[in-house]
Amino acid sequence: MLEFQYQMKVFYKDVDQMGIVYYSRYLEYFEAARTEMLSSIGLDYDKVEEKGAMLPVIEAHVEYKKGAVFGQNITIHTSIISRPKVRMKFNYKITPTDSDDVLVSGYTTHAFTNVDGKPIKAPLYIRNLLKNHID
Amino acid sequence: MLEFQYQMKVFYKDVDQMGIVYYSRYLEYFEAARTEMLSSIGLDYDKVEEKGAMLPVIEAHVEYKKGAVFGQNITIHTSIISRPKVRMKFNYKITPTDSDDVLVSGYTTHAFTNVDGKPIKAPLYIRNLLKNHID
Amino acid sequence: MLEFQYQMKVFYKDVDQMGIVYYSRYLEYFEAARTEMLSSIGLDYDKVEEKGAMLPVIEAHVEYKKGAVFGQNITIHTSIISRPKVRMKFNYKITPTDSDDVLVSGYTTHAFTNVDGKPIKAPLYIRNLLKNHID
Amino acid sequence: MLEFQYQMKVFYKDVDQMGIVYYSRYLEYFEAARTEMLSSIGLDYDKVEEKGAMLPVIEAHVEYKKGAVFGQNITIHTSIISRPKVRMKFNYKITPTDSDDVLVSGYTTHAFTNVDGKPIKAPLYIRNLLKNHID
Repeated sequence: MLEFQYQMKVFYKDVDQMGIVYYSRYLEYFEAARTEMLSSIGLDYDKVEEKGAMLPVIEAHVEYKKGAVFGQNITIHTSIISRPKVRMKFNYKITPTDSDDVLVSGYTTHAFTNVDGKPIKAPLYIRNLLKNHID
Repeated sequence: MLEFQYQMKVFYKDVDQMGIVYYSRYLEYFEAARTEMLSSIGLDYDKVEEKGAMLPVIEAHVEYKKGAVFGQNITIHTSIISRPKVRMKFNYKITPTDSDDVLVSGYTTHAFTNVDGKPIKAPLYIRNLLKNHID
Repeated sequence: MLEFQYQMKVFYKDVDQMGIVYYSRYLEYFEAARTEMLSSIGLDYDKVEEKGAMLPVIEAHVEYKKGAVFGQNITIHTSIISRPKVRMKFNYKITPTDSDDVLVSGYTTHAFTNVDGKPIKAPLYIRNLLKNHID
Repeated sequence: MLEFQYQMKVFYKDVDQMGIVYYSRYLEYFEAARTEMLSSIGLDYDKVEEKGAMLPVIEAHVEYKKGAVFGQNITIHTSIISRPKVRMKFNYKITPTDSDDVLVSGYTTHAFTNVDGKPIKAPLYIRNLLKNHID
């Protein structure tokens, strides 16, 4: 299993009238976390696009337990459990940085496509990079 | 079943480097659609909050088939199938306004809470409003 | 002077913890308004890009008098006063739809560039379209 | 003069169809930078609100020289030049983290108000904190 922890702080721009992070913003936090996880194993997403592949999301799921609030330091715990073939699934769990209390959890599933959006198998260099980290 | 169609246009602010709407923005479109659906039966969300109830989202799910693009007129088809008790579920389907082609589909589930965030049953006036529309 | 009024409604996604629209969102409202104003005279922005020109913003200015609130119907009053040469300036004024009370005002200045980002003069077909509306 | 440098990375969520950060997002970057600058001198914005003051923006100005791109590490250089009385002005300059090339510059001006939005003078504890840093 490939795991990564991305830390960030909640700013005013994401907090709604109820005083908690607006529900769509967590998908933005998920994106930052998965981008940094891939980067941590040498897979920069801009390089992926340059090499002719894209990873469009085909499914996203979020469960909201408790809202993150302004000024809060949070950690997005991200993981990939299975080696990707034609799809890649990321799992996410958001906690306050100083606790195990789960605020939000979810997953996103992505397809591999070429630049024209046609589905392709996971490029070999990506599978090679990931197999060092995922059994 | 309560149904509603919300029409809108895609602007530059929501379109990403791939030339399609960024994946979190559809949750914003869902919000506009459900707000207008409730408003269409006399249930303005600001009034709901004033009367002491809130409808925080507890689950969101999105399936992405095809990205909406800049300048596109799209319709968000929203529905509530079951009368709410402690939760209310909205279904969504986004199509181009001039076709039946499904671009994105999904749902959100909401809980009823009081202003302190404590779960409550759906307020009577909301159940009464909805039972005129949902068998 | 070319003038246009764009009407819209404020949704939850844009409202912050103070209960008013977050300060950056008005620039998104300005974009929708200027896009629709240009479209109203036959100048669809996606066509502009297809024809090889871009209109990147080079300056934006906003003055905040009073915040727009959730559920409010607002009108963005947009205008172009001078015929564009190498730059085009849009003025904006946001009011509640049912009053003259100015909530926010501002302007954006845009340059004409080719697809490589090199400054160009306003394309002839754009100047021709605009000169029918601006003395 | 109070100065602060806030470093961040550009993610996909902020990048538009032209491949550069959408023009409103820089105001979000400005917010993060000024929040962290104030925090660096012991002035956490959530505490400011708790103590009964707010700092709504009354003016924002942005000049766009060159767009930040996906994956880029950028630094927001923020400063306050004058001690605040009834208003506080922040200046911003965004550069790539590894260069002096100015991508974007701007400023925001904020008023001090009480929780009802009525203008007030800068609270004494804020003036005291700032006078240690600004001549």
